[in-house]
Amino acid sequence: MKTPITVLGLGAMGTALARAFLAAGHPTTVWNRTPGRSPELDDLGAGRAKTVADAIAVSPLVVVCLLDDASVRTTLEPAATELSGRTLVNLTNGTPLQARRAAEWAAQQGAEYLDGGIMAVPSMIGGPAAFVLYSGSPVAFERYQTDLAALARPQYVGSDAGLAALHDLALLSAMYGMFGGAEHALALISTEKISPTAFTGELLVPWLTAMMASLPGIANDLEYGAAPGAAGSNLAMQAAGFVNLIDASEEHGVDPLLLTPIRDLLDRAVAAGHGDEDLGAMVRLLLKTAG
Amino acid sequence: MKTPITVLGLGAMGTALARAFLAAGHPTTVWNRTPGRSPELDDLGAGRAKTVADAIAVSPLVVVCLLDDASVRTTLEPAATELSGRTLVNLTNGTPLQARRAAEWAAQQGAEYLDGGIMAVPSMIGGPAAFVLYSGSPVAFERYQTDLAALARPQYVGSDAGLAALHDLALLSAMYGMFGGAEHALALISTEKISPTAFTGELLVPWLTAMMASLPGIANDLEYGAAPGAAGSNLAMQAAGFVNLIDASEEHGVDPLLLTPIRDLLDRAVAAGHGDEDLGAMVRLLLKTAG
Repeated sequence: MKTPITVLGLGAMGTALARAFLAAGHPTTVWNRTPGRSPELDDLGAGRAKTVADAIAVSPLVVVCLLDDASVRTTLEPAATELSGRTLVNLTNGTPLQARRAAEWAAQQGAEYLDGGIMAVPSMIGGPAAFVLYSGSPVAFERYQTDLAALARPQYVGSDAGLAALHDLALLSAMYGMFGGAEHALALISTEKISPTAFTGELLVPWLTAMMASLPGIANDLEYGAAPGAAGSNLAMQAAGFVNLIDASEEHGVDPLLLTPIRDLLDRAVAAGHGDEDLGAMVRLLLKTAG
Repeated sequence: MKTPITVLGLGAMGTALARAFLAAGHPTTVWNRTPGRSPELDDLGAGRAKTVADAIAVSPLVVVCLLDDASVRTTLEPAATELSGRTLVNLTNGTPLQARRAAEWAAQQGAEYLDGGIMAVPSMIGGPAAFVLYSGSPVAFERYQTDLAALARPQYVGSDAGLAALHDLALLSAMYGMFGGAEHALALISTEKISPTAFTGELLVPWLTAMMASLPGIANDLEYGAAPGAAGSNLAMQAAGFVNLIDASEEHGVDPLLLTPIRDLLDRAVAAGHGDEDLGAMVRLLLKTAG
């Protein structure tokens, strides 16, 4: 028999997780604060538990996907004694600090703990493009990675429980930055009779794909030190050209609010004497200027 | 004989342009405010003109690549009478408004005008990955596109001279957004013992490449209207999750200044009733909130 699994929390993501475990043939027990949520899971064979303690009692592997860290605590604390000897996989969105505290708490209850960051929207769960970052107990990951693969490709990033959230949030930051830049670009071209779909397909996506080739150079700079002038560009040149981005945005009636902090950081880097360096200096400045 | 070409301005980019024309066999005349700049061009066969007027007089095609729009005006105005009957290709960084004014001015001198946006750093000129956006006189583009291809793949975006700069600045905005997000991501992971090169190669680049698949959906929303819930995510969910990005950044000593405007715009979109929409609503908000 496949590993019995309990899923706590039936929001859009929790429901998708339960569905994927059921599709992979796992005896799956679900619990949600509001009873009867996601009735389609009943037809797929899910068991319903009346209490969190009942839900935990029936499975060695307990997957938690709730609204936030506070929900995890209020949900698990009343059932803490049931956790001994089980593995808790917390896929709730949170910070590294929250993950580390949850790991400590789980250890106090005698449970193995894995924290996870789901790099997917619910519709991608069970599909080929999604992956889930895990950190925490190596023993638990070793034991259950095959079962967890029913959700998405599992990628283990370290025994420190906070590392999955850190990687997750770093990747989300990069995504939101890319989306923010694209939003500004689309706003700019929308002010003229330019087709957003043609612009995106013919120019934006190929351009960003080409420019992504610069990212390993920034990482290399951070890890091994800068290769001066390697990129053929530097922060002083970028800061000088940035004026046009802000001016043109204002002339075209596009709020430059997503660009101004980038300009400010560039200007600050140049003022601090990093004008002949490249984007690695921006990363170091983000670390230095934190309050 | 190949078209004689004049290049005004021998900064890093102007020098790369002259070098590419020489490599393609064009009789190439160069001028720079400071004489004797880029002596390597002499060995490659470039002619040196003493004045701007002399430089313009010897070629039907005049390529200008100077510091900024003000430099273009102060450089060309004393030699304005020489421009009649020639084609002026302005590759100086600038805004759409500056390009439209330059096109008007060139027309008054009896010159055909093309404005260009170089999507490359100097080292990429003459190579396969670079392209140059052109807008302005369709006659001039038709006549000289083969010659201009010596620099990089030419891409014509319309007869309105401002359109090349608009496309150029839109693409640069998107690039700076992507780089800004990546800088924040790299700052976050740098606070722990995570290899920046491994993170970038194994996670960041594949993740951004996968997430880029969302951009055509945003463009589609802008052009044809939203497909509700198509992305399986919405602005309310993104705004709720964004709290963790800011909290974790602060907990790890990373200045969140590149992320806070994205959070603010998300929050504003949700407050304005767009919580169930996707990123197209962010683009519309950038257009609406401009002062």
